[in-house]
Amino acid sequence: MTGEFAVIDRLRRLLPGPPAGETWIGDDAAVVMPPRGGLLLTADAVVEGVHVDLALQGLDDVGWKAMSASISDVAAMGCNPLYALVTVCGPPDTDIDLLYVGVAEAVEAYECPVVGGDLVGATQLAVTVAVAGETAHRTPVLRAGALPGDRIFVTGRVGASAAGLRLLRAGAIDADHPLALAYRRPQARLAEGRAARAAGATAMVDISDGLAADLGHLLDASGLGAALDFVPVADRATIEEALGGGEDYELVFTATNPGHVAATFAEAGLRQPLGIGYCTADPAERTLDGQPLPPAGWKHDFR
Amino acid sequence: MTGEFAVIDRLRRLLPGPPAGETWIGDDAAVVMPPRGGLLLTADAVVEGVHVDLALQGLDDVGWKAMSASISDVAAMGCNPLYALVTVCGPPDTDIDLLYVGVAEAVEAYECPVVGGDLVGATQLAVTVAVAGETAHRTPVLRAGALPGDRIFVTGRVGASAAGLRLLRAGAIDADHPLALAYRRPQARLAEGRAARAAGATAMVDISDGLAADLGHLLDASGLGAALDFVPVADRATIEEALGGGEDYELVFTATNPGHVAATFAEAGLRQPLGIGYCTADPAERTLDGQPLPPAGWKHDFR
Repeated sequence: MTGEFAVIDRLRRLLPGPPAGETWIGDDAAVVMPPRGGLLLTADAVVEGVHVDLALQGLDDVGWKAMSASISDVAAMGCNPLYALVTVCGPPDTDIDLLYVGVAEAVEAYECPVVGGDLVGATQLAVTVAVAGETAHRTPVLRAGALPGDRIFVTGRVGASAAGLRLLRAGAIDADHPLALAYRRPQARLAEGRAARAAGATAMVDISDGLAADLGHLLDASGLGAALDFVPVADRATIEEALGGGEDYELVFTATNPGHVAATFAEAGLRQPLGIGYCTADPAERTLDGQPLPPAGWKHDFR
Repeated sequence: MTGEFAVIDRLRRLLPGPPAGETWIGDDAAVVMPPRGGLLLTADAVVEGVHVDLALQGLDDVGWKAMSASISDVAAMGCNPLYALVTVCGPPDTDIDLLYVGVAEAVEAYECPVVGGDLVGATQLAVTVAVAGETAHRTPVLRAGALPGDRIFVTGRVGASAAGLRLLRAGAIDADHPLALAYRRPQARLAEGRAARAAGATAMVDISDGLAADLGHLLDASGLGAALDFVPVADRATIEEALGGGEDYELVFTATNPGHVAATFAEAGLRQPLGIGYCTADPAERTLDGQPLPPAGWKHDFR
């Protein structure tokens, strides 16, 4: 066993260090350059037995997923992440170094350094990542703002993470299968979020709780309804997994000018987002191909 | 039972809301004004069975303590907190509203609004608070920077939180006793931190792991030793509790000009900090009244 301070010192070496004039891990707080424009702040927790199953994925996957979950929230505003704080609560025999291998991979992939955090003994593994981002002097895309008649887009087909979990549990796929990776290594869609903002997205949200629930949040915030033409179900996923499976981290956004969306995504070299329906003025309307949309989605119950 | 979204909506009403132009709880990320000067970032977790004992304190105390622990890190830089993100992982029957009563009290006391966070089901209660602060265009006080010959100050006597815990466990004091409050409602020393910075503090740290450990961090970062004249033990605390008891959140700082410290604290209407010894050039020297300082302090063991 090693004290937390020695562990923190070891973990620092897995991670990039600060530029001159900044203080990262190792002081009471990190001191960093302020954002360009407004400051974005978000935090998400990934908990063993809720979001991750250590029988099906490694601790490196947990580190990756915790970073991705929070950075996805910044992507959903069309903005850039700047700095992350990683807090690990977990059993003393947790292989923190392996967890930080995944964290370090996410730091590199998302260009978002870890500047601090905490490490505490606990009976259950919970990794909380807080992220600071920047608006870069432009208006971020909120959940509110969609207009009646706006086209609804999704950046990719959904349900892959839920299908991957089901198929991994059944032993039907191995850990390197694309669906297993969708579950183990979900990607925050930063480039897609930026493109949606550049294309004039009127509202946006990331799919962490399922398409039905998260589109519902966008519609509730915007005071609108929706008529969907279809649900873009991932290969081998069920319609329930597509509507209710969280953690695909695809983005849902609305836009008034679909041609501008197509051109902006093409110019950015990104896969075209899928137009799945339209916003309607009646907030009570939530239909799929004319039928009521089944309510579904991941939520945690509290009293 | 209620879904997390309904709970989050209810908790929002316990908390102050955003000024025009900002977005706080309820979107993917909060959008807030950037800091004046540099950005400070810190996160700390408070875990049931480690930092808090629900047999001895209420969930409101847990909310207060989690906010205080992170804000204390900002105090230890001599800076101001701006925004907090509160992430609660806990059993579904947790009285989140009561926890947020303590959070809301801390928001008011420290003038640090909660702008976001997360709420996740878990078997063990863990509250992680991330705080963003500002340097306000001045250099923050780090752990490194103390000079040989600097006087070492503590903002108050230490060990009260540990003594309060011991006496509460023994049934020797009731929940409103000052020592019980030191344990249940520790105070982040924001005014003292600002005064120390204004007085030219060369290095500073907050006492969350015990005077011996935290002064040790300051000395290690500064490459110095220390000769202490005495340990300012709180009433009814033991010397072990004073050296090793964490979570008093008093500040330890060093300064080259003690007269400037006295004048600055007096001008700010603050209790005078206690001079407890001097920094020495030999990093191996850690003495109390000429004898080796017993190594003590709170740490979490990890492999």
